[in-house]
Amino acid sequence: MRPIYLDSNATTRVDPEVFEAMRPLFVDQFGNPSSKHGFGASVGAVVKKARQQLQALIGAQFEDEIAFTSGGTESNNTAILSALEVMPCRTEVVISAVEHPAVLTLCEHLEETRDVKVHKIPVDRHGRIDVDAYKAALTPHVAIVSVMWANNETGTIFPTVELAELAKGVGALFHTDAVQAIGKFPVDLKSTAIDMLSLSGHKLHGPKGIGALYIKRGVLFRSLIKGGHQERNRRAGTENTPGIVGLGKAAELAMKFMDEDSKRIKSLRDRLECGLLQRIPEAFVIGDPIERLSNTTNIAFENVEADGLLLLLDREGIACSSGSACSCGSLEPSHVLRAMNIASTAAQGTIRFSLSRDNSGKDIDRVLEVMPALVEKLRNSFPTCSGYGEGI
Amino acid sequence: MRPIYLDSNATTRVDPEVFEAMRPLFVDQFGNPSSKHGFGASVGAVVKKARQQLQALIGAQFEDEIAFTSGGTESNNTAILSALEVMPCRTEVVISAVEHPAVLTLCEHLEETRDVKVHKIPVDRHGRIDVDAYKAALTPHVAIVSVMWANNETGTIFPTVELAELAKGVGALFHTDAVQAIGKFPVDLKSTAIDMLSLSGHKLHGPKGIGALYIKRGVLFRSLIKGGHQERNRRAGTENTPGIVGLGKAAELAMKFMDEDSKRIKSLRDRLECGLLQRIPEAFVIGDPIERLSNTTNIAFENVEADGLLLLLDREGIACSSGSACSCGSLEPSHVLRAMNIASTAAQGTIRFSLSRDNSGKDIDRVLEVMPALVEKLRNSFPTCSGYGEGI
Repeated sequence: MRPIYLDSNATTRVDPEVFEAMRPLFVDQFGNPSSKHGFGASVGAVVKKARQQLQALIGAQFEDEIAFTSGGTESNNTAILSALEVMPCRTEVVISAVEHPAVLTLCEHLEETRDVKVHKIPVDRHGRIDVDAYKAALTPHVAIVSVMWANNETGTIFPTVELAELAKGVGALFHTDAVQAIGKFPVDLKSTAIDMLSLSGHKLHGPKGIGALYIKRGVLFRSLIKGGHQERNRRAGTENTPGIVGLGKAAELAMKFMDEDSKRIKSLRDRLECGLLQRIPEAFVIGDPIERLSNTTNIAFENVEADGLLLLLDREGIACSSGSACSCGSLEPSHVLRAMNIASTAAQGTIRFSLSRDNSGKDIDRVLEVMPALVEKLRNSFPTCSGYGEGI
Repeated sequence: MRPIYLDSNATTRVDPEVFEAMRPLFVDQFGNPSSKHGFGASVGAVVKKARQQLQALIGAQFEDEIAFTSGGTESNNTAILSALEVMPCRTEVVISAVEHPAVLTLCEHLEETRDVKVHKIPVDRHGRIDVDAYKAALTPHVAIVSVMWANNETGTIFPTVELAELAKGVGALFHTDAVQAIGKFPVDLKSTAIDMLSLSGHKLHGPKGIGALYIKRGVLFRSLIKGGHQERNRRAGTENTPGIVGLGKAAELAMKFMDEDSKRIKSLRDRLECGLLQRIPEAFVIGDPIERLSNTTNIAFENVEADGLLLLLDREGIACSSGSACSCGSLEPSHVLRAMNIASTAAQGTIRFSLSRDNSGKDIDRVLEVMPALVEKLRNSFPTCSGYGEGI
């Protein structure tokens, strides 16, 4: 039986067209774009095209607003550290409580090792940001706001364009971790107050090891990785040319298919979500019912250990996740679920299904067919398990 | 006519076997190795294998001494910044005057923005490090020494193993930028006092966008890029799995062919070097005559503008370099040639030929055939050009 992949917020399959676009850059067009000879020049041209493909997807006004990086984590780190360096008189950072570890871990490190104060804005039980608390944190001490556009675990979408406008009011830079957003819904950066934006190739059917940081023209910036003059001095190191070309092609495909795909994916996701809730008692959706990525559903199954359920699903050839892949190896509910105040009996049993254009109706049928029995089995095997801690 | 690539210190062609090893990781085995399901686990296994392949090439005692990064520049930046962070009482850094911009630019930035003193150890006219000056700079204030194992422009090899021993004497960490060394001559790190070592995939017929930092077990370390727990908390961000697998395969091939290749490449290089010196007057080799990479020859042609020569060579389908690709766009002699006190009339006319296992005797024949006339043509076109500045 064909394996079913429903973990696209962790990573996606490289689109075969993306792979074909990358292929010549390995063995044939292998030149270093910084070189002055023909081997370099031809590669320079394809890198330029990729930058324009990505520019079109994110609606950047200028192609040179895009600096290619090694991925979303590096982009996020770069944006925050740059802001603190270019605005040395401002020592505060505003983030949400549900950021990805690429933002959260860095900010915790900055609090421990530097004179930096980090405001973590809380979210409600649907994962929605507390806008009043956000406004209260915005003062002229803030160097940068960094909030994710869409949450990787719940799919909840923040009102990022509005949050950026508010940040402008106090002269803070505004960065968004848009790793889960780009390619899933339309974005037009030139019409926003967003100063910097992070994205990652492998979340939109591009390759791993490549990402980008959008830096609006005029925004003061300091590179994180220092060395050669690549990327207009904003990211040193020989360009990952196959990765860049792959990301460009992935951006082109995302634009081409976004309308059609997102409707189809949403319909599959809704069928999965409704089907599971109809078939399995004591289950509910975690995340914003309305402002949510069309590919994501995070469902809490009461009195189930998610890890056990993942294992049983894996044996059936169905891949999904109990939270973000980055926080695996831990039995604690994720920081996102804790920030949302999800009761531990439910949080321990949450499963994230994240779809992509690779999924079909048959995938959904199969999950709906096998899940009820698996949940039932786990609940019967360990009837008192989830209540154990609370009963003592 | 088949183009001739003699710029392998800038970048190398991905070996077709490396590409074949990477291929399944894009469209088929696309899982995130951090994921708990089958899509992730199978990828985890190939990443482990790649780490072992690289371990074998560099003679690391333990496979977990290797952290994959996005390339040599990131590895270099990480090593130096880590040392300053884990040894806050030491605020000095020792480097050579001929380091790659990935070390030099970072160190200059640290001097400008932090209370860090950088000692740049001079080199002689062959590019050999001044060991007395090096010893004099080693004090208990030094957090880290970072010297390249082999120079990218001249191929000069530093006595890195001995330099590392000396650094131990004052308790400093020792890092080497071995981007040009690894894959070109045998290295056995477990028998050295080297604490950290940077390498890059695309310099040894692996892909661009991947590199590694060797961190000897027990060495205190802080990650540069912060986020998820990948690479045992030493480098956050979803693993570039095709890149890692490609680097592993490239390491395996480098080991397999090193003995045979380096002899054959040295013989081609020597034939090129001797042939050019025999055929072209007022030309001499720059770099250590003995301790030099077997693939590199950097030749100064007096009274010639290197950029003009590169252009004529490019028209003949021959690709080489007038210095490191990273410092292109500048008409000044490179910092390496300036540090070596090469007279400007010669420095302006230096061409670096860097070979690889992809080159054949025919490539050398062709260069020997066309070069003399090209140099002659340039010297006749601008007979007074090179003396101009000095004549005034």
